[in-house]
Amino acid sequence: MVTIHDVAKLAGVSVATVSRVMNDHARVAEKTKTRVERAINELNYAPSVLGRNLRTSKSSLLLVLIPSISNPFYTEIINGIEDTAIARGYNILLCETDSNPQRETIYFNLLRNRLAEGIISMDPSVNKNKLNELAESYPIIQCSEYDTESPIPYVTIDSEKAAYEAVTHLIELGHRKIALINSDERFLYARQRRNGYEQAMKQHGLAIREEWLYNAPQLKFAAGQEAISTLMQLEDKPTAIFAVSDIYAIGALKEIHRKGKKVPEDIALIGFDKISFSDMACPSLTTISQPMYEMGRISAEMIMDKLNGVNVSSKVLEHRLVCREST
Amino acid sequence: MVTIHDVAKLAGVSVATVSRVMNDHARVAEKTKTRVERAINELNYAPSVLGRNLRTSKSSLLLVLIPSISNPFYTEIINGIEDTAIARGYNILLCETDSNPQRETIYFNLLRNRLAEGIISMDPSVNKNKLNELAESYPIIQCSEYDTESPIPYVTIDSEKAAYEAVTHLIELGHRKIALINSDERFLYARQRRNGYEQAMKQHGLAIREEWLYNAPQLKFAAGQEAISTLMQLEDKPTAIFAVSDIYAIGALKEIHRKGKKVPEDIALIGFDKISFSDMACPSLTTISQPMYEMGRISAEMIMDKLNGVNVSSKVLEHRLVCREST
Repeated sequence: MVTIHDVAKLAGVSVATVSRVMNDHARVAEKTKTRVERAINELNYAPSVLGRNLRTSKSSLLLVLIPSISNPFYTEIINGIEDTAIARGYNILLCETDSNPQRETIYFNLLRNRLAEGIISMDPSVNKNKLNELAESYPIIQCSEYDTESPIPYVTIDSEKAAYEAVTHLIELGHRKIALINSDERFLYARQRRNGYEQAMKQHGLAIREEWLYNAPQLKFAAGQEAISTLMQLEDKPTAIFAVSDIYAIGALKEIHRKGKKVPEDIALIGFDKISFSDMACPSLTTISQPMYEMGRISAEMIMDKLNGVNVSSKVLEHRLVCREST
Repeated sequence: MVTIHDVAKLAGVSVATVSRVMNDHARVAEKTKTRVERAINELNYAPSVLGRNLRTSKSSLLLVLIPSISNPFYTEIINGIEDTAIARGYNILLCETDSNPQRETIYFNLLRNRLAEGIISMDPSVNKNKLNELAESYPIIQCSEYDTESPIPYVTIDSEKAAYEAVTHLIELGHRKIALINSDERFLYARQRRNGYEQAMKQHGLAIREEWLYNAPQLKFAAGQEAISTLMQLEDKPTAIFAVSDIYAIGALKEIHRKGKKVPEDIALIGFDKISFSDMACPSLTTISQPMYEMGRISAEMIMDKLNGVNVSSKVLEHRLVCREST
């Protein structure tokens, strides 16, 4: 680890001078300041102390990286993380990355500077190389999304199997023309759920029409509404829809009603996640239940184990088809 | 400001030794370590550097304190804060306090240790004395909730007037028996909205029955459902309901349907906030629109001004009655 001594040596000044620069002391010549700052930047030096727990250099803070706080799917997971972490004396800093690598880098630096002790990442589009590199030195767990080629342990569900079951449920109800409202396929879960959809269709000898596959640009109700506007203009309309998120399904439901059609009579609808809204919708939404709170709880426990030097392995949790009124 | 030199002096060691202790260096005697740590604690010394922007000691991080991330009301405000802060080169750390003073203290320390430059607090039950004390040294803005007796600038709406208008809307539709589903009245907004409700009722010569005033323990759909279960058991049932949050109103809507009643025919319903889900409900919810994104944007701008030494004054933004299908 780089210390203040290395900085002093490189800058050709005393440790006390480095310290003065770092503390923004008045009596340092501008030239010296610049030299010290350059050395600090060059060595990537950062003091490692939060001002407490000095002996162990513990900050007792964990970072939780989420792409967006607007999705209740993430907030449920966070509840599980927080309850578990707090019971173990840890607190959480939530970092909304908006899937922006620059913002991710800033949060990564909090770990490098030892202001946080570990990261639970739910961000699917995080800079993978950087995350893997960071994971060599710091405890990192992935939750929900993961990278099949990375050694970072994860907690997730079997999205492909879950999607297969959702579509099979629609087929068993007699549907033959089934559309898919999917997320951006740079997300692993989106690719897996599409695979599950295709498997179920193929296994039952059903055609997959390119125009029934809708990729939503953003995870918003409006995206589900737009999907319906598009799908309902087709000549060969689907009679059932599998949406990879309850958010899309709830937007779709609204738009189907707006068009004077009924769910499930005219169009059946199945969502994914089982966010609390999904039960408030009218009709209530059939969906795939993800154990969100459990996912949070277990990822927090895994990172605690990592912090204690215990080896952890990835976990795939059980999902569940919840049949309600929309199918 | 306390510097490393003060620590060295008090501990009776060199600056280099303090630095070694802080960097967890191996070659420091246990006794010396203890002495240095004691001095650090006594002086409350904390290095002020995040490893970048050294000259200005800027972390370019803001803390946003929220009682709970589960309410879309807060997440909309956060979107406004983030867009504005990021455009000005700042990033956000979200701190869910769960209205717990201990957790608040930990986040306050991040400010004291200069890991963050300012706080936007949406937490109504934050430790007021501590927050006021902190505001003497650091930029703090309150958003939505505020303290009438504190000098901390805030951004909010006129909750009392908005509630008055909501209830007047119900009265103008012919309702005489109007119930209130309120939050915990330790929140200022809850007290203000109750005042607005009472004013409207009194002004129109309508009786306020104690049993029509329901205080929900938690901001969850289930609380709205439970409110309806209670209110519908009354002998003298209300014909309309004003809920101080869309979350309660959506839960209430679900429960009214479950009881085989219709909205607005049997019971009219008005919410508060205009979260995106309020438009997805069926029927769509009449509600008071709060300019959530604007509240976030303006509070971020206010804290930027504060950081630049510009004086800021509190702002009360406009709300709006949005008539939809539930009334």
